[in-house]
Amino acid sequence: MSEKLQQLKTLLAEVADLNNAQALLGWDQQTYMPPGGSEARGNQLATLGKISHQKFTSDEIGTLLSDLEKEYKGADPDSDDLRLLKVTRHNYDKATRVPSEFVAEFAVVTSKAFEAWVEARKKSDFSIFRPHLEKVVELNQRYVSFFPPADHPYDVLLDQFERGMKTAEVKDIFDTLRSQQVELLKAIAEKPQVDDSFLHVEYNEKKMMDFSEVIATKFGYDWERGRQDKSAHPFTTNFSINDVRITTRFEPDNPTIMLFSTMHETGHALYELGSKQDYERTPLAGGASLAVHESQSRMWENLVGRSLPFWEHFYPEFQKLFPAQVGNVDLDTFYKGINKVESSLIRVNADEATYNMHIMLRLELEIGMIEGKIEVKDLPEIWNAKMDEYLGILPPDDARGVLQDIHWSGGTLGYFSTYALGNLISAQLWEKITADIPDLADQFRQGKFDALLTWLREKIHVHGNKYEPQELVQRVTGSKIDPAPYIRYLKHKFSDIYGL
Amino acid sequence: MSEKLQQLKTLLAEVADLNNAQALLGWDQQTYMPPGGSEARGNQLATLGKISHQKFTSDEIGTLLSDLEKEYKGADPDSDDLRLLKVTRHNYDKATRVPSEFVAEFAVVTSKAFEAWVEARKKSDFSIFRPHLEKVVELNQRYVSFFPPADHPYDVLLDQFERGMKTAEVKDIFDTLRSQQVELLKAIAEKPQVDDSFLHVEYNEKKMMDFSEVIATKFGYDWERGRQDKSAHPFTTNFSINDVRITTRFEPDNPTIMLFSTMHETGHALYELGSKQDYERTPLAGGASLAVHESQSRMWENLVGRSLPFWEHFYPEFQKLFPAQVGNVDLDTFYKGINKVESSLIRVNADEATYNMHIMLRLELEIGMIEGKIEVKDLPEIWNAKMDEYLGILPPDDARGVLQDIHWSGGTLGYFSTYALGNLISAQLWEKITADIPDLADQFRQGKFDALLTWLREKIHVHGNKYEPQELVQRVTGSKIDPAPYIRYLKHKFSDIYGL
Repeated sequence: MSEKLQQLKTLLAEVADLNNAQALLGWDQQTYMPPGGSEARGNQLATLGKISHQKFTSDEIGTLLSDLEKEYKGADPDSDDLRLLKVTRHNYDKATRVPSEFVAEFAVVTSKAFEAWVEARKKSDFSIFRPHLEKVVELNQRYVSFFPPADHPYDVLLDQFERGMKTAEVKDIFDTLRSQQVELLKAIAEKPQVDDSFLHVEYNEKKMMDFSEVIATKFGYDWERGRQDKSAHPFTTNFSINDVRITTRFEPDNPTIMLFSTMHETGHALYELGSKQDYERTPLAGGASLAVHESQSRMWENLVGRSLPFWEHFYPEFQKLFPAQVGNVDLDTFYKGINKVESSLIRVNADEATYNMHIMLRLELEIGMIEGKIEVKDLPEIWNAKMDEYLGILPPDDARGVLQDIHWSGGTLGYFSTYALGNLISAQLWEKITADIPDLADQFRQGKFDALLTWLREKIHVHGNKYEPQELVQRVTGSKIDPAPYIRYLKHKFSDIYGL
Repeated sequence: MSEKLQQLKTLLAEVADLNNAQALLGWDQQTYMPPGGSEARGNQLATLGKISHQKFTSDEIGTLLSDLEKEYKGADPDSDDLRLLKVTRHNYDKATRVPSEFVAEFAVVTSKAFEAWVEARKKSDFSIFRPHLEKVVELNQRYVSFFPPADHPYDVLLDQFERGMKTAEVKDIFDTLRSQQVELLKAIAEKPQVDDSFLHVEYNEKKMMDFSEVIATKFGYDWERGRQDKSAHPFTTNFSINDVRITTRFEPDNPTIMLFSTMHETGHALYELGSKQDYERTPLAGGASLAVHESQSRMWENLVGRSLPFWEHFYPEFQKLFPAQVGNVDLDTFYKGINKVESSLIRVNADEATYNMHIMLRLELEIGMIEGKIEVKDLPEIWNAKMDEYLGILPPDDARGVLQDIHWSGGTLGYFSTYALGNLISAQLWEKITADIPDLADQFRQGKFDALLTWLREKIHVHGNKYEPQELVQRVTGSKIDPAPYIRYLKHKFSDIYGL
C-alpha cells in the first residue's frame, strides 16, 4: 500500500475512534446514564465532536487526499482504496465547506429550537416553535449556499443523508407513488376493517422482551457482537463493526410493537455487522445511506416479520407464551391484525400502506420551504390540508399535526424522504431475492433465515459505505430506486388481507 | 477572574472531557460491552488517551501556567485558584517529564507482562512472569530517573498515587504498625475461633443485590447521580461530579461479600459525589489521593458496615430476608462471624486485622526491588518467608503467593501502600468524628447516617483534590497520618470479639 494511503488511514482511524467514542456517550445517555450526568455529557459530546471535526478537516488530510487522488488516477474505480478516497473526499469537502462559526451558530439555534419545540408540542401551540423554525430554514438555506450551485438547492440537503441523490429523482419517484398509493388506500377503506383488538390488551413485558430476542437470534443477530437494552426511543448504534447494539421499548398500549421494533433494529444492526472487516476504522464501514439502512430494517420488520410464512412458524410459540391474549385467535386473524391499515395522525405509528403518505407530505413542505414558496407561518394550514387530501383525516391539534416530529427542531431538513425510499428499496430487493431464492417462504415456515441473511450480506452488507445508494441499488437489482415493486408488494399483500 | 486563568480552565475542561469519556469507555468495557467490541475499544482508549495527553502537555498550557504562577504570586495560598495552579503544575510536570517514547515502550512491555502474568498465575509458574517483571522494575527505575533526585527513589513512584508522600514517612508508619499488629494477631490466634459457617451457604443473588442497594441508599448514595451495575471486579468510576457509578459482584462461595463490596464502593462514590461543584471539569474534582479515597471506602465498609450498631438496626431486616440462612443465628454470632480474623493467603479476602500485613510485605518487596537490594528471581522465596513471619502461613504455590496481584503486571509499583494508609486514615478520622458526634452509634442503631455523611462532606469530600493527602489529614485531625488510632481501633474491636 502507498505510504501516503497508510498515513491517511491512520488519521482516519483516529477520527473513527473519536466518533465511535461519541456514539458510546450517546448510547449511554439514552440507556443507563443517571439524570445527574446530563450536563457533563453535553460537554463531553461537544468536546469530542469538536476535536473529531478539527482532526478530520486538518490540512494534513487535505494534502494527503489531493496527493493520493493524483497517485491513484487510473486505478480500478471499484477498488476499495479508490472508493475510500472518493468517500473521504466527499465527506472532507462537506466538512470543510461549512465555516466553524456556522456550525457554532447552528448548535445554538437548534438547541433553543429543540427546547421551543418540546414546549410547543406540549401546549400544541405552533406559534412558540414558529420563529425557531424560521431560523432553521434560514440556516439550511445558508448551508446550501456554502456548496456549488446544484440542480436544486434541496439536493445539497438530501446529499447529507443520501450521497449523490437528486431532488428531481425523489420527486419523480414520489409522483409515481402518490396516486397509486392513494388509490390503494381508497380501495382498502371501502372494505370491512380487520380486527386487532387482541393486540391492545395486557402482555407481560419480560416475556415479550425474551421472545423478541429469540426472533433477533433467529434472524442471525450475533449476541457476542451486540446487545439489546431499553430506551425511550428505539435505535441502533455501533462503536465498531463488531459491537453493534440495539435498543427497544415496551409500550403498554401497544405491547406487540416491541417485537416489530426489535426486528426493525435488528435489520439495521445486521447491516452494520456485515461490513467487510477491512473497513473497520475507515469511512467505508457502515451503511451506504439512510435509505439503504431503512431498506434493511423495514425488510426484516415488514417483509419478513409481518409476513404469513414467518408467523406460520412463530405463531404456535407466541400463542403458547400468551394463551390468555391470543389462545383463541387463529393465525389468519392474527396476521390480518398485525397488518391492519388505518389512516392515522402520527407517522411513527403508521402502517405499511399509509406510511409513505406521511413522508410525501413532509417532503413537499420541506422543498417548499427551501424554495421559499412555503412560509413557515402557513405550515399548520398546509399540513392539515394535505393530511385531509392524502389520508382523509384532520389533525385535531398541531401537537398531533405539524409539531409531531423532532427532526426540524434539530435543524434537520432532507431526512424524511429516506424513510420512504427505504421502503421502496426493500421491496425492490425483495423481488430480486425471491427470484434468487425461490423457496424463501418455505424457509421462513421452518424458522430459517440464513439464506436471506447470506444474500443480503453478499449483495449489500459487505460493501458497507463503498457505493452511493443509487449505484448500489442499480448494481444489485439492475435499476435505480423504483417505486413499482413496492406498489406491487402493497397491492398483492393488502388485496389478500382486505379481499380487494 | 484573570483572562489567562479562564483560558487555562477552558483547556483543562477539554482534557477533563476526554478523560471522562475514557472513563465511560472503561465502565462499558467492564459492564455491558459484548466480547466483539474488545479490540475496537482498545483502539478508542488509546486514541483518546493520546489526544488527552497531547492536549494536556501542550506548550499553550505550559506557558499559561508559568504566566499565571507569576500573576498569582502572593495570592491566598488556600484559594481554589492558587490550588488549581499548584495541582495542575504537579500533574503537568509529571506528564511532560516522561518522554512519549517511554510511554509507548511502557505500554508495550506492560501489555506483554499482563499476558505473561495471566499465564504464570494459571500455571502457578513464576518463571513465566519473571523476565517481564524484571523489565517492569527496570522501567520503574528509569521512570524515577526522569525526575529530580528525591530523598528516596521510591518517593517518585509513591507520588503518582499519594501526592507529596515520602517513603520515609510510610516506612515509619509501617514500622510502628508491624509489631503491634503481629502481637494482636498472636493474641487472637490463641483464642477459640468464631463461627461464620452461616455466611457460606446459598443466598439469593437478587435479594442480596436489592438489600445492598437499600444500604447504599441509607448511606446517602444519590441514585439520580449514579447507579450500580455488575462487573467481574467491583469498582467506582465517574464521568462528572454528578455521575458517579459503582459496580458489585456476587460470589456464590461468599455471598454476603456483595453487601460489603457495595458499601465499600459507595464510600468511594460518596467522596466523588461530594466534590465542590465548582471543581467540575478541573483537576480539583475527585479525591485527594488513593489512600484518602480508601479511607472513605474502608470507613463505610468496616467502621460502619461491620460495626455492631449498624447491624443492630439492619439485622432484623436481614434475618427476615434470609430466614433459612440466619433465622436462627443471633446478632452477636452474626457480628462475630462477619468480623472473623484468620490468616489467609489472598490479600483481597483478608480481614481487617490481617489486611495490613499483606500490604507491608508488598511494600518491603517493592522498595527492595527499586533500591536494587532484592532481585526479582528471589521474590517467591522472600514472599513465602515473610508470609510465614507475618501471618504464620506458607503459600502452597506461587499462584496463591507472589503471583496473586495484578498490579505489577500493569507496571505499577508504589500503589499497594495506599490500601494500608487508607485503613489508618479511616480510624484516625473516626476518632475525630466520634468526638464531634458523640451519639454516632445511637444514630446507626436508628439507621441514620446523615450526620456522618455531613461531617465527611464538610471536612473531606468538598475539598476534592485541593489538598495533598498529608495536608488534608493534618487539617482535619490535627496530625499527619498516624497508625495509633487504627491500632487502638483494632485492639478495642477484636478484644470484644475474641475476649482478649
